[in-house]
Amino acid sequence: MDIAFIGLGNMGGTMAANLLRAGHALTVFDLDTHAVNAAVRAGATAARSPREAAARATVVITMLPAAAHVRGVYEGDDGVLAGARGGAWLIDCSTIDPDTVRTLADAAAQRDCRLADAPVSGGTGGAQAGTLTFMVGAEPALFERIRPVLLAMGKHVVHCGGTGTGQIAKLCNNLLLGISMMGVSEAMALGVALGIDPSVLAGIINTSTGRCWSSDTYNPYPGVSDAAPSSRGYTGGFATNLMLKDLGLATDAARHARQPVWMGALAQQLYQSMSQQGLGALDFSACVKLYAPPGS
Amino acid sequence: MDIAFIGLGNMGGTMAANLLRAGHALTVFDLDTHAVNAAVRAGATAARSPREAAARATVVITMLPAAAHVRGVYEGDDGVLAGARGGAWLIDCSTIDPDTVRTLADAAAQRDCRLADAPVSGGTGGAQAGTLTFMVGAEPALFERIRPVLLAMGKHVVHCGGTGTGQIAKLCNNLLLGISMMGVSEAMALGVALGIDPSVLAGIINTSTGRCWSSDTYNPYPGVSDAAPSSRGYTGGFATNLMLKDLGLATDAARHARQPVWMGALAQQLYQSMSQQGLGALDFSACVKLYAPPGS
Amino acid sequence: MDIAFIGLGNMGGTMAANLLRAGHALTVFDLDTHAVNAAVRAGATAARSPREAAARATVVITMLPAAAHVRGVYEGDDGVLAGARGGAWLIDCSTIDPDTVRTLADAAAQRDCRLADAPVSGGTGGAQAGTLTFMVGAEPALFERIRPVLLAMGKHVVHCGGTGTGQIAKLCNNLLLGISMMGVSEAMALGVALGIDPSVLAGIINTSTGRCWSSDTYNPYPGVSDAAPSSRGYTGGFATNLMLKDLGLATDAARHARQPVWMGALAQQLYQSMSQQGLGALDFSACVKLYAPPGS
Amino acid sequence: MDIAFIGLGNMGGTMAANLLRAGHALTVFDLDTHAVNAAVRAGATAARSPREAAARATVVITMLPAAAHVRGVYEGDDGVLAGARGGAWLIDCSTIDPDTVRTLADAAAQRDCRLADAPVSGGTGGAQAGTLTFMVGAEPALFERIRPVLLAMGKHVVHCGGTGTGQIAKLCNNLLLGISMMGVSEAMALGVALGIDPSVLAGIINTSTGRCWSSDTYNPYPGVSDAAPSSRGYTGGFATNLMLKDLGLATDAARHARQPVWMGALAQQLYQSMSQQGLGALDFSACVKLYAPPGS
Repeated sequence: MDIAFIGLGNMGGTMAANLLRAGHALTVFDLDTHAVNAAVRAGATAARSPREAAARATVVITMLPAAAHVRGVYEGDDGVLAGARGGAWLIDCSTIDPDTVRTLADAAAQRDCRLADAPVSGGTGGAQAGTLTFMVGAEPALFERIRPVLLAMGKHVVHCGGTGTGQIAKLCNNLLLGISMMGVSEAMALGVALGIDPSVLAGIINTSTGRCWSSDTYNPYPGVSDAAPSSRGYTGGFATNLMLKDLGLATDAARHARQPVWMGALAQQLYQSMSQQGLGALDFSACVKLYAPPGS
Repeated sequence: MDIAFIGLGNMGGTMAANLLRAGHALTVFDLDTHAVNAAVRAGATAARSPREAAARATVVITMLPAAAHVRGVYEGDDGVLAGARGGAWLIDCSTIDPDTVRTLADAAAQRDCRLADAPVSGGTGGAQAGTLTFMVGAEPALFERIRPVLLAMGKHVVHCGGTGTGQIAKLCNNLLLGISMMGVSEAMALGVALGIDPSVLAGIINTSTGRCWSSDTYNPYPGVSDAAPSSRGYTGGFATNLMLKDLGLATDAARHARQPVWMGALAQQLYQSMSQQGLGALDFSACVKLYAPPGS
Repeated sequence: MDIAFIGLGNMGGTMAANLLRAGHALTVFDLDTHAVNAAVRAGATAARSPREAAARATVVITMLPAAAHVRGVYEGDDGVLAGARGGAWLIDCSTIDPDTVRTLADAAAQRDCRLADAPVSGGTGGAQAGTLTFMVGAEPALFERIRPVLLAMGKHVVHCGGTGTGQIAKLCNNLLLGISMMGVSEAMALGVALGIDPSVLAGIINTSTGRCWSSDTYNPYPGVSDAAPSSRGYTGGFATNLMLKDLGLATDAARHARQPVWMGALAQQLYQSMSQQGLGALDFSACVKLYAPPGS
Repeated sequence: MDIAFIGLGNMGGTMAANLLRAGHALTVFDLDTHAVNAAVRAGATAARSPREAAARATVVITMLPAAAHVRGVYEGDDGVLAGARGGAWLIDCSTIDPDTVRTLADAAAQRDCRLADAPVSGGTGGAQAGTLTFMVGAEPALFERIRPVLLAMGKHVVHCGGTGTGQIAKLCNNLLLGISMMGVSEAMALGVALGIDPSVLAGIINTSTGRCWSSDTYNPYPGVSDAAPSSRGYTGGFATNLMLKDLGLATDAARHARQPVWMGALAQQLYQSMSQQGLGALDFSACVKLYAPPGS
């Protein structure tokens, strides 16, 4: 297929490489010429604008840091919408708010294109291994068509419902994740302060009603989950500042919907405190440090 | 074995029946004569005081509502400690604070008895089915000895460490459970308000990083987990007021340890608000109602 | 002076009328022709665009609902910046984020204009009575010049520092106000639940360390402050939805600055819950209803 | 009058000295013989037990650290109630929970004595200067009688209602104080992070709707309130650990009343975090440190 790929950062560059490896013809665009050159060396063609990239393709994939970048790439004279062919499938893999998705989907429909949101989970590790999960918001017919394209970059492609629901699924999952990790940190730190062994406590939680991914797979207490960032100084993984971004999306969406999110808002402030203390680049499970006395 | 059993409420009465069924000789005490009579009909002998019950047994098991009752039963002229034989094993299955456990264990040691804390999870259903989990705080030798007795009433007997650690494990697990259930409610309610189908959202969460017991087994959103209280009007299960009691134990223990529990304290207030609104007898997963507009 | 006034809503229309009454020549613009006609009947001249209004004036005043409107009025081919004369004083009285103010001030400086932010407190009552307080962010020389203009619409004109600090002062004050009102509601409701008379409690607080404007002037408990909205069914005053907007500005600014605002974020969620329950149009002191059992 | 005074700590010792200075005859009791000796040197008579002290007096005043001490002093064979004369006035000036007060008042009534609760505000400074405020819960007739006695130790004696309402008034005021101080810290820290001068911001708040004792008299930002602990390294004043005790009383009372106290519970956790970090002996306004980046 002729695919345009816009946004060649840590995630996007790796995903584009997987598409090339799967035999797709790729036209790429990014403001960073090093990233473009790397893609070109791997077999892609460079475009001078999102518009030009879109004009050459039947599928346009975007992978960008935030809603402002997505709007910038889609709208305007040099944007994807100005160049996209009638009938094109537009797939935004960025993590942004559902309202922006719906606005862009309406604008795309006016140009006879169809847009799906397909945010990912799995991080840069999953992108490299081709094991990403895509949470897709799209009309059923569109979902069936783009599914094979996404499977070239990932392992699980989940249909969440109509346009925007991919983002909704991701932000709700990550809202819960942000809360759970803080909850596990709180429970582990309290247990240790009261005198129980952290591994014993984790073992009990993991076979009881408190069990969760944040405890049984990614326990924040050092030495409990061997493969987790907590056992390597909280390096790698999912940065606190990215969790903060996702909690910002979730609490903003809640605000617009007049929906209270007490626990998420408190968790957001706790991660914000970590970030203020200079821990924003550490894996988000480093939030357990908020519960420890200084110097421990 | 000669066992004294004190506290024949919903949980204790059922547990005592299971001990009788397993062939143990039981002396029982409770202020409620109906409960005593029921146990006597099932084969137990009635004692007139905790002291008298303890005097006839080598193992004393207590199952009481709160720390004040436990102290009342152990201490004083008519108490367990006044009657217990040298070398007796004292097992408190109540859910209370670790400090009270340690105080009583010290007092027991002075009378040449050894005390273990063994709070349970599994509720009245687990008690009837004999599938309770016991979280045991005891010296290793004592743990090995009381293990067979507990297995007559449950399925899992977990050694958590020294005296008091059974309570610590339970309160830490339940602290996390109270937080997780609130977090799942928040994420589900937000997703539905934004436009995703609740079962689809739960399906995504349950295969992603947000997965937890509160989502995959006991989802608070009606119709998502068929076997959960949310699918039968939040009846049965674990009452909000009992969750409140356990969060009170956890936040009190945290206070004495000068350990912050931001998320748990907030969750506690939210359950407290439910209780104020007259929902305290419903299963704690009814907290999802806090997130819905009135009349919905 | 020749003044352009853009934004003739409840606040802006009244402020413009006061400027006319003070003898200033006014050119006005608003999308609402009824509002424009009312101003014209009072002596103003109508312009067809912000650009045209600005072109006729040495002072441009804007009073708009949110940052998006302010940017829309200032930027673009028909915007204030396209029409403003060199040396013009631009005064934005809207309540928006400090970053937008600084961006617009930079754009204004490029066209040889100087911009001040001057958000107000005092509400529609203060606007009518001419008793508003203006919190002004401006270089000292500009502040001295615009001061007399603002005094025609209000009673207090406070210099908060350089550009943007007017907004900072307002959002920090309102962050504290939102917290204090919730705190007073919590303390009053708890006291009443425990059995003290609300007027007696308020009297003690008001002469003790808990005293604050939310208690001594605007007490949320009905019947305590005779002149407050709580004594007239929470009508009039400062709507919950406007408090929500201001808390949104404060928590957003905090997010960008990586500054934790635990208490403000929690208060925001509590007001959000009120709004979800259909209480958003009531005065924000109606938050005391969150603390009462249903039906009380 | 013949007065028994029990509890000669930092507060009680000074209060007792003021009673002696006012010409009252004092019998004192304390476990600390140094404190007793100091009182005897000032003119008091020593008793060997609370019972003996009570037996010699028509007024018994107690000033103790917590409810457990108060119960210990009143109850038991050597307690106040065992010795008190019929018709005696018992005045507990300790800060404890209202339920304990009511329980003791009932026990006192059975011995034909009447008990009032009269917790104080003003700290050790107010005790020395004789400017304490007493918040009194008592029947009207009893209040009138004990008023002159209390005025010998303080300046303001406020009648809060029936027995227990003195404690209710104090804990509600201090709940609000704990919230307000945290709110002021949050608002000040946010303003400074965004770029406004702290004294200018405080000046605006203090003449606006955010004004409160925590801002205009006791501002937590160093250098804003010259006479406040914040301007002398947070020494003196009201220790964080004492604020924690009072917030514990307030949230416990709220728990028993099923009354949500979201803001107070969060504030409590934030002070608890300070205490964990070793700041518990500093004045509670040091909570502003929670909002600053480390090393600042």
